[in-house]
Amino acid sequence: MKKNIILTAIGLTIAMFSASAQQNLFVSQDIQSAVVNPDNTVTFKFIAPKAHKVQIAGDFAEVVAENPIGGMVGTGLIDMEEKDGVWEHTTKPLPSELYSYMFVVDGIATIDPNNPHVYRDFGTINNVFLVGNGQADYYAVKDVPHGTLSARWYHSDGIGIERRMNVYTPYGYENNKSKYPVLYLLHGSGGDEDEWVVFGRTCQIIDNLIAQGKAEPMIVVMPNGHADMQAAPGESPLGYYKPFHFRDPENKFVKNFMEIVNFIDSNYRTIKKKNGRAVAGLSMGGGHTVNISKMYRNTFDYIGVFSAGLFGRGGEPDAAIEAQFTQQKNDGVKLYWIGCGKDDFVYQSCENLRKELDKVGLSYTYYENEGGHVWKNWRIYLSIFAPKLFK
Amino acid sequence: MKKNIILTAIGLTIAMFSASAQQNLFVSQDIQSAVVNPDNTVTFKFIAPKAHKVQIAGDFAEVVAENPIGGMVGTGLIDMEEKDGVWEHTTKPLPSELYSYMFVVDGIATIDPNNPHVYRDFGTINNVFLVGNGQADYYAVKDVPHGTLSARWYHSDGIGIERRMNVYTPYGYENNKSKYPVLYLLHGSGGDEDEWVVFGRTCQIIDNLIAQGKAEPMIVVMPNGHADMQAAPGESPLGYYKPFHFRDPENKFVKNFMEIVNFIDSNYRTIKKKNGRAVAGLSMGGGHTVNISKMYRNTFDYIGVFSAGLFGRGGEPDAAIEAQFTQQKNDGVKLYWIGCGKDDFVYQSCENLRKELDKVGLSYTYYENEGGHVWKNWRIYLSIFAPKLFK
Repeated sequence: MKKNIILTAIGLTIAMFSASAQQNLFVSQDIQSAVVNPDNTVTFKFIAPKAHKVQIAGDFAEVVAENPIGGMVGTGLIDMEEKDGVWEHTTKPLPSELYSYMFVVDGIATIDPNNPHVYRDFGTINNVFLVGNGQADYYAVKDVPHGTLSARWYHSDGIGIERRMNVYTPYGYENNKSKYPVLYLLHGSGGDEDEWVVFGRTCQIIDNLIAQGKAEPMIVVMPNGHADMQAAPGESPLGYYKPFHFRDPENKFVKNFMEIVNFIDSNYRTIKKKNGRAVAGLSMGGGHTVNISKMYRNTFDYIGVFSAGLFGRGGEPDAAIEAQFTQQKNDGVKLYWIGCGKDDFVYQSCENLRKELDKVGLSYTYYENEGGHVWKNWRIYLSIFAPKLFK
Repeated sequence: MKKNIILTAIGLTIAMFSASAQQNLFVSQDIQSAVVNPDNTVTFKFIAPKAHKVQIAGDFAEVVAENPIGGMVGTGLIDMEEKDGVWEHTTKPLPSELYSYMFVVDGIATIDPNNPHVYRDFGTINNVFLVGNGQADYYAVKDVPHGTLSARWYHSDGIGIERRMNVYTPYGYENNKSKYPVLYLLHGSGGDEDEWVVFGRTCQIIDNLIAQGKAEPMIVVMPNGHADMQAAPGESPLGYYKPFHFRDPENKFVKNFMEIVNFIDSNYRTIKKKNGRAVAGLSMGGGHTVNISKMYRNTFDYIGVFSAGLFGRGGEPDAAIEAQFTQQKNDGVKLYWIGCGKDDFVYQSCENLRKELDKVGLSYTYYENEGGHVWKNWRIYLSIFAPKLFK
């Protein structure tokens, strides 16, 4: 047994850099990790006979430690136990969720070599696994009809560059003549047009909600919210660069947003009026949503602000902004939905937005839950928000 | 300086498991890796003050060692040098190519935490970087008009499941009424419908060839070649499983291939005849190509066999197969293109195919180059093959 383990440990190194060589494809570690067990415990394994300490860094550490907050990451490490060179740990039963993790081997963070499912968030790569039988069933690919996801480029006259967006069209779109409502879904400051697709599980959430009869068939448009960024890292002429924060001091994304709406209205069979359009976003994208929805009058009937609010100037809107909110209230919206976690570092901004809407009398729906500025919450918000649209 | 490095090393661990928490987004290592320098040398850096040995495992190791073969991976490790806790290595100037690598820290393979550009190949995750000013310029996103990439699902009556494919439509497709030719591009046994998109750089190669006037605008269809596999790992109801080899003993993929052609002809504006269709594939997909192109008479005028040939029975075709090749020769094809590397482990199979085609008098174009069964070659073959189509 031990001999086998050492051999597979050598196999590991060989397999790990077989890279683009299918010639080496058949050398692999003979273990599975992370394995979600029937009782929703999860077993991690890692072969490292020479390591002194192997830990798991994951966003479920607090759940394991029965921290009532849950969902926050970066605050806990779980020690794995070694036997015959194989490090192992099985968690307590975990709530249904899409989780992220890495291993930390003698202080060096590394991905789990037996789990090739990794997602990028800004500049970091993490392994993922999904515990089902609950909320995360919305995030899984199920045996339901699937929509189409397209990466499309458009030319921005206002910004002067080619730009990329992701467009989800629901199952059946290609084979009928109906017109569809559109949800514009905006990402956060560390994100790009891929963020809602990957960590956000948008295609799966919308596929599953439609299949269950809970949401109307809709087009979902996920543009890139950084005005000067053509496309996600690795997908633009900048090549494979280390992600950095794009800044938009001139607010060009918001100012040119109607280019995107017009492109979609020209290229897809859309309902080209207010009651056929929703806009929602998380964090920076929530700020974009607040601004876009009041700036472009009578364009969006459904507004979703996730983990965001009134940023800047201590959250106090000036008279001009207040006048815009009053105008928006007078024009009328069908739904102004706000979601925020109790521990979110933008909680105060969100509260400021609610106060301002109260002040001008623009009624909204407020959803507050546990946790902070994390994908766990944004996926929940989308799965609550989408069923309320276009009805 | 040293203090800063230790602080950033701690920052590393924090950043690496910030995962889905944008709250931790702003903690990051203050170094860049891999940096492609103006002279095409490449500098790698890694912060690991406690490590005893850090190496680079990459498919450029032989190039650095001036091995004339090049392109093969898994055969060399490069030692990095440590100073003040930072490990560093600068290569010799590298030929233009899309390269893969990992770090090996005290025997444990890990991704480069400062390079979030990772690609999956079957079950392994590797970092990538691109050295331009040559062949690999075809693999980069350039400032040229971009086509649209769509992940689409279709129902296979023959196999009885929903299946996913990637469809590239060239720039302009959505905004005219023209009919387009179609290239069906098939992956290898370790791959899936995403393989040609990711490592194959198909969208970039075709975008760039069209922009340079070297290739005709064409649709490229990349189906999943494992009959019982709905979609790539992580993209099907199987969830986030460890990839395993699907088998197709009944040859269901080839037998049901016309479902895919019919789906594309029904859903896209295609040229629905032989001179508007090409089929090509690598390795297993090359075998599929050989069979599909002779089995479905007068369906494909352009055939590309990359790193493949006649497999099984020692490569000796039986009388029935020989009769099919004769029929194919009599029906006529515009191009039968074969590409193989001198060191490819399927070289003999490829030679057997050529002998067989010689025997029946079916003329073909043969391209032989250095290297083995690797993406480097398949990208080259696509960039040579695509310009010969539909002219």
